[in-house]
Amino acid sequence: MSVEWLRRLRRGGPAERPGGARESVPRSPQPAPPQYRRPKFLRVGEESPRGGRAVRGTGPERPLPWSSGYAEVINAEKSEFNEDQAACCQISVRRREPGLEEDQEWLILSAVCMAPRRLFSLLDLSSPLQFLTEAAIIASNYLHCCIKQKLEEVAGAIVEACPPMHLSGRCVCDSDPQFVEEKHIHAEDVVVGALENAFQECDEVIGQEMEATNQTGGCTALAALYFQGKLYVANAGDSRAILVLKDTIVPMSSEFTPETERQRLQHLAFLFPKLLDGEFTRFEFPRRLKGDDVGQKVLYRDYFMEGWGYKLVEKADLKYPLVHGHGKQARLLGTLSVSRGLGDHQLKVIDTNIEVKPFLSCIPKVNVFDFAVHDIKEDDVLIMATDGLWDVLCNKEVAHMARSFLAENRTNPHRFSELAKSLVCRARGRKRGHQWMLDDSQEASYDDISVFVIPLHNRVEDC
Amino acid sequence: MSVEWLRRLRRGGPAERPGGARESVPRSPQPAPPQYRRPKFLRVGEESPRGGRAVRGTGPERPLPWSSGYAEVINAEKSEFNEDQAACCQISVRRREPGLEEDQEWLILSAVCMAPRRLFSLLDLSSPLQFLTEAAIIASNYLHCCIKQKLEEVAGAIVEACPPMHLSGRCVCDSDPQFVEEKHIHAEDVVVGALENAFQECDEVIGQEMEATNQTGGCTALAALYFQGKLYVANAGDSRAILVLKDTIVPMSSEFTPETERQRLQHLAFLFPKLLDGEFTRFEFPRRLKGDDVGQKVLYRDYFMEGWGYKLVEKADLKYPLVHGHGKQARLLGTLSVSRGLGDHQLKVIDTNIEVKPFLSCIPKVNVFDFAVHDIKEDDVLIMATDGLWDVLCNKEVAHMARSFLAENRTNPHRFSELAKSLVCRARGRKRGHQWMLDDSQEASYDDISVFVIPLHNRVEDC
Repeated sequence: MSVEWLRRLRRGGPAERPGGARESVPRSPQPAPPQYRRPKFLRVGEESPRGGRAVRGTGPERPLPWSSGYAEVINAEKSEFNEDQAACCQISVRRREPGLEEDQEWLILSAVCMAPRRLFSLLDLSSPLQFLTEAAIIASNYLHCCIKQKLEEVAGAIVEACPPMHLSGRCVCDSDPQFVEEKHIHAEDVVVGALENAFQECDEVIGQEMEATNQTGGCTALAALYFQGKLYVANAGDSRAILVLKDTIVPMSSEFTPETERQRLQHLAFLFPKLLDGEFTRFEFPRRLKGDDVGQKVLYRDYFMEGWGYKLVEKADLKYPLVHGHGKQARLLGTLSVSRGLGDHQLKVIDTNIEVKPFLSCIPKVNVFDFAVHDIKEDDVLIMATDGLWDVLCNKEVAHMARSFLAENRTNPHRFSELAKSLVCRARGRKRGHQWMLDDSQEASYDDISVFVIPLHNRVEDC
Repeated sequence: MSVEWLRRLRRGGPAERPGGARESVPRSPQPAPPQYRRPKFLRVGEESPRGGRAVRGTGPERPLPWSSGYAEVINAEKSEFNEDQAACCQISVRRREPGLEEDQEWLILSAVCMAPRRLFSLLDLSSPLQFLTEAAIIASNYLHCCIKQKLEEVAGAIVEACPPMHLSGRCVCDSDPQFVEEKHIHAEDVVVGALENAFQECDEVIGQEMEATNQTGGCTALAALYFQGKLYVANAGDSRAILVLKDTIVPMSSEFTPETERQRLQHLAFLFPKLLDGEFTRFEFPRRLKGDDVGQKVLYRDYFMEGWGYKLVEKADLKYPLVHGHGKQARLLGTLSVSRGLGDHQLKVIDTNIEVKPFLSCIPKVNVFDFAVHDIKEDDVLIMATDGLWDVLCNKEVAHMARSFLAENRTNPHRFSELAKSLVCRARGRKRGHQWMLDDSQEASYDDISVFVIPLHNRVEDC
């Protein structure tokens, strides 16, 4: 984890390069920034004409593993490029064991989708919004490698139902297996640990690459991994994954935003007030305070409160709040709409020296779904999408669309691709005059939208 | 919140008195420590003979509000006194409003139970365990006052369905009500905030009282508050409250132990390594490491991990872990079995200069139950008990006992008191030789046990 800010606060000295001594990413004297591209499996070069916001998706000519579907659409002229990225592949993890003649190898299906963080100019709301795609491109290139590497590091342990205390498998103490059992440590916990470490590693790689190419930016990341009969969904940001099963919807992720992580963010500001550099207040208020509020008691929350209290307003409370706004408008330091993700090592609040990175976490929350204890039906799917979809469609609507579409198209071999397109089309809506509208005449999504639809039935045979 | 440790770390200077400038607790030159006593409503002076562990409870001569029942039993010779404390009362909260001729006043039913923290000697496991009751006695004296005070401070707001932005009720900005509504702030959030602040206030009072009387110790606290048709349960520690309804059990609290709060504790040690003074490691391992483990890769977790990874063991990893042990044996700094509660301002790890307080939180988690949306039946009850009960009986067993006992004794006006006694008897078990055994020949609870049984039906009429 990038903790350069912490070292600097403790030392009071000059900044070190994040991940200083690491040599995993080779450097050239003047490396070029990563080139903008769409996901490799789409086989498209340039964007289609923007005005139409044509939906693109996987076709029969280059199918994804398990016949999974993917579709995307660019935002409504918010930026020049589609800021979302996606990747899907089968990772082969080797177990290197000295005694074996050949390495053992497993296949792992993995899909990832990413969206860059939106930057909002705090102090000049009329300045153009910035959108930076590099971090998402680097992440889509590297996250799979990091996951593969971290899984290989623990390969000796994740094949056992109960992982050994020592990775070598040799006990130092006779009762080691009991200690591991007492702590309820299973193979899936080691896979979860590997995913947590992989996100952290990828964050460091992005930090180095971005610094080397003099780029800035970050992205959220949502990754799904199928391994040994279990589905692992790791999320850092505001994308979302749900399982749509015959009779139920299983949320496989939760969003990390300045609102959902308010207490963590405020607590850090309480512990290290210097991080706010006298420009922000850590207190939350229902609205930004004004001069007239000074001397009044107004609703507020501090880091330790889930409830609300009343605070006698002082002049210092008129500063911009660390966490401010509500719903899609909620912002961290007036700058970011998410509180977890990868990158943004150099990001500062506009016109200040305040770093955002100390408040950002690159650690995903990993949810696990065990297929062994569920009877998976033919139309059951995992749906992963960036916030562009979920901003206008709720889980229930998406599940309803998926169930009816798949039931009506059971004989179509490309039905998962077509469902992905259909979901993107629905969220993008139609253009009426200058506006993009949903069917029911509500506003549609102006954001980039990316959707994976991954079937869960017969997954072993197809993989 | 006591953050003296943080001030000291920042300043590097000498310690200030916690809550320095506060004057709320009057001091005499040499105040006496609080006198040991059992809960006032029990009307018992001295303890009954210890060997028998007689169960004591409320009787018909001095009923609790709502005909609630209470029972307790002392531990099995672990300490001289019963370390649990309990309090139950109706708080009257006044709304002071300048315009009104007389103050408005509401009655609030409130019950509290508390257990002191067990101290374990880390470096000399053969030394006698220490049990200190003072903090629990002070808390049982003051927590109600703190709750009353904090509720009165926000009395103008909690009578409104939607609390005003300004406590005065006067808008500074026309759209203030919209801002409050957008944030979904309701009266119950202000009650929750008042409870959070009341626990914090009570923690400060305990710190001052204990310092003034030269005492040490702390306690956990579980408080239930009935107010305006809602039940609020605030918990800081390892006591537990459940609602036993006709068809379901509703957990109203969760336990805060070194295991459940491992990530918070490790994160603090990561941010402030000085707090461990080179004596502890923040990493968690399945067992304490030995010299033979050095150079091996062993299972471990750091603060950011819910999963497990493998760590190459260095010599520094042989230090005692910040969080160590499993289940009832889990310890914070080898010293405490809980991670939240009140008091312990002066507590240090034995034979070291390491303070425990920075790792302790006095903030409760508050759960709310709205009676308006539930059809409460005659036998529905809230059961609050210290860990002595829950160590040997699970929620399901307690609910089963409550339902069958109450159904069989429907005409008995003292059935809630008798149920409380029956639960305590069951958890204490019977003495067979030198051992206390449950009916099913498993070991019974050797701890102090305190139980409230609070009926929920006709609560308004009875109150």
